[in-house]
This record gives sequence, C-alpha cells and structure tokens, in this order.
Amino acid sequence: MKGPDNKNFIPNLSFDCVIFGFNGKLLKILILEYHNTGLFALPGGFIEVGQSLEEAVKKGVEERTGLKNVFLDQFQVFGNLERSDPEAMRRILKGNNKNLNENNWMLDRFITVGHYALINYEKVTPKPDHLSDSIGWYAIDELPRLMMDHNEIANKALQVLRNNLSEKLIGMNLLPQKFTMKELQSVFEAVLDQNLRRTTFQRKMLSLDILERHEKLFQGKAHKAPYLYSFK
Amino acid sequence: MKGPDNKNFIPNLSFDCVIFGFNGKLLKILILEYHNTGLFALPGGFIEVGQSLEEAVKKGVEERTGLKNVFLDQFQVFGNLERSDPEAMRRILKGNNKNLNENNWMLDRFITVGHYALINYEKVTPKPDHLSDSIGWYAIDELPRLMMDHNEIANKALQVLRNNLSEKLIGMNLLPQKFTMKELQSVFEAVLDQNLRRTTFQRKMLSLDILERHEKLFQGKAHKAPYLYSFK
Repeated sequence: MKGPDNKNFIPNLSFDCVIFGFNGKLLKILILEYHNTGLFALPGGFIEVGQSLEEAVKKGVEERTGLKNVFLDQFQVFGNLERSDPEAMRRILKGNNKNLNENNWMLDRFITVGHYALINYEKVTPKPDHLSDSIGWYAIDELPRLMMDHNEIANKALQVLRNNLSEKLIGMNLLPQKFTMKELQSVFEAVLDQNLRRTTFQRKMLSLDILERHEKLFQGKAHKAPYLYSFK
Repeated sequence: MKGPDNKNFIPNLSFDCVIFGFNGKLLKILILEYHNTGLFALPGGFIEVGQSLEEAVKKGVEERTGLKNVFLDQFQVFGNLERSDPEAMRRILKGNNKNLNENNWMLDRFITVGHYALINYEKVTPKPDHLSDSIGWYAIDELPRLMMDHNEIANKALQVLRNNLSEKLIGMNLLPQKFTMKELQSVFEAVLDQNLRRTTFQRKMLSLDILERHEKLFQGKAHKAPYLYSFK
C-alpha cells in the first residue's frame, strides 16, 4: 500500500456515480472531461478518513457537478484488479499540475462503490469542478469512450435502473400528478428503448400494486376518456 | 491510516457474509463464535492486495466456514464511522494469541461490503476455522447479539432476500422439480414469516412470468388434482 503520503483519504477505495437525466423522452448520463487529458469519466471521488461513505458521496457529487441533493443509491462494488489504470491517473494529475509524488497513492489499485440516481435534466444545470474542462449530458447510446471501466459501470447502472424503473419514477415528477396508462407506457418505452405491448404492460403495471385508479368524471365525453392513474 | 504494518491486505475494507440456510420450512443464518471472547459474528474477512473482491469473498467463505461454491451476491456497503469497534478486534486478537502490534491495522476503521446467499442447510456441514470456537445455524428470530453492526447487516440482508425471493429460490432445489401452487406458497410463507392470501399469491406469482404450468395427465382422479408448475 502506498499509504504514507496520504493522510486524508481511505486508500484503495473510491466511489463513482452514474447520474441519469431523463425528461420523459430522452435518457442521458452526466459525464466530466478532465483538463488537458481528453479523458472522459463518471463523477466520482474518495472517502475522507473521518467521513462516512454516504457523506463522501453526497459532498463529492455536489463539488464535482454543482448539483445539490441528488439522492444516490449504491448498486454494485467493482473490485477487479484490472480496473485500475495508473497511466490515466498520471495524465489527470499532470493535466491539473498536481504533484505526482504527493499524490502517488492515486496510482494504486482502487475498488469502487458504484452509485446511481435518476433526475430530470431539464430542472438542473451541472457545473464542472476545478479538475474538469466540461460537464455534460450524453445520450446513453452516444457515450464517449470513458476512462478505466466507467463504460462498464454505466452499463451495469442502466440494467439496474431498468429493473427498478417503477420505484425510481415515483416522486420524480416526470409525469403529471394523474396520467393515463398510455403516458406511463411512453415513459417506460423511452427508458427501456423498446416498444412494449399495451396489454402486457397494463397487466404488469397493475400487478405491481403501485398505481391508484381514479374514477372518471361524468361530464361531456368523459365516458370515452381513458382512466387516469396516480402513484400510490 | 495505520498502513505500514500491513503489507498483505487492503486497509479499511472488509467483507461480511449473511449465509441464509433454508430447508423449505425454517430459515436460519450462519454465525461464528470467536475463541475466548464470547463474540459472535457473521463470517467475513479482508481483501488481499493482489486479489479481486470476488476471489477474496469466495476464498474467505470457504476458509471460514468450510463450505465450497457458495454463490454470494453483494447487497450493500456499510460505511458509517460508528460501525468500527477496535475493542472487539482487540479481544479477538488477544483471544487468538495474535500480536497486537503486528495486527494493529485491524483496529482501524473498516468499510464493509455486505454479501448474502441462500443455501439448503440440510445439504451442508459448516466447519469453524482456526479463529473460531464454533460455527452454527441460528434461527433468524433467535440470533445472538452479534459484534459491531452485524445484527443490522443481517437484518438488511433479510429484507433483500425477501424482495428477491423468487429468483433466489430458482435453482435452489428446495421444491420438487414440479410443484403445486400451494407448495410454492408454503415456501414463501416460511421465509416471509407470514400467512399469504391464496388468490393474491397466485396472481402475483403468475404475473412474474417465472412459472411454467404443466398439463394435467388424464388418468384416474387427475382431473381433480391441482396444476403442477416448474420454474422456467
């Protein structure tokens, strides 16, 4: 372990964040570009010796992206030996005029705790931190080549998001308070990037027991109108 | 960081394993008792510098419990500052005649990666390792007081198991190849520790799309027999 030059951070451990942005139609991911390196990466960071993992992630995301109060969930720890890339870290340190000797603990092996969140990108404006040239939303099928295993981390997060989509959508305000089954289906189709069969979708949604169906109002053509739902 | 005396392991990082044993009727958890300490704990360990997290967990579980090829899934990282307990580690080192000076990195703060698995306890015989007096299966509502935050880790794992029960049961061979809906319901009731309504259970199971229904054989009283199912 290259411990002695690092008094502030837990060595060998980092976190990385896949922040999905969605406006009801397009799904994107937040990516940073490091100064003078051409390297693209997920926002991430290290854990201070006196910090809980949760605090470190919360503070780190705010510092690196300018976004406040993003609620991130852990989804997987990435612990392979092959994932670390001292060469990329060297370029980042050099590109930011950081002292290699003082920071050589960053060239060591890292195990990283993957986190993810889903937010509405139309409601926030990310800001790059002092290490980065730019920060921006990239469509999930147009991601640049990311450093280390960050593309793999993003893909795993996408699988997890798709599996947990119902619970993530609740409270995200991507739908009106009350919505039709068709509107709900459109949101799922956009994130899953595939067409869904109406009958199967409806059966599945109802079986999840997360929707409340509202009575139709009997005025005008209301009897022809579709049912409205809201999340329980 | 108390790094210099530890050349073999990644500091500040551990893994802990909640191994659920289930025989179709009773749900238990595997617990170790450390020599001369009165301390009970989940099986766990550290990650060697040259080891992937996955290898460390696989090897560690085999060494500590004698159980081979237990497939463990990560479920949560526990990273609070309060969870570490140097006093307990001191007792374990002392109780095992280990040199405190050489092992003082173990008194430092640890972030732990929680893993869990579900196996049939009737098919395996765990063996305690050299650090432990005993290893044994404890019913989930009769767990002893565990060291550090291990009771909390076990409870979180139980929640995750209950949420993922269908997929965990597949391939566990806790049911005959073909089973009735009633047999399947009994297994769920045992793990969830509550009675379920037959109609709701049946609807939920069928909507999950994991069961295959088999045609009845028309011989004798077969027309009165319940349908048989198998996992897809």
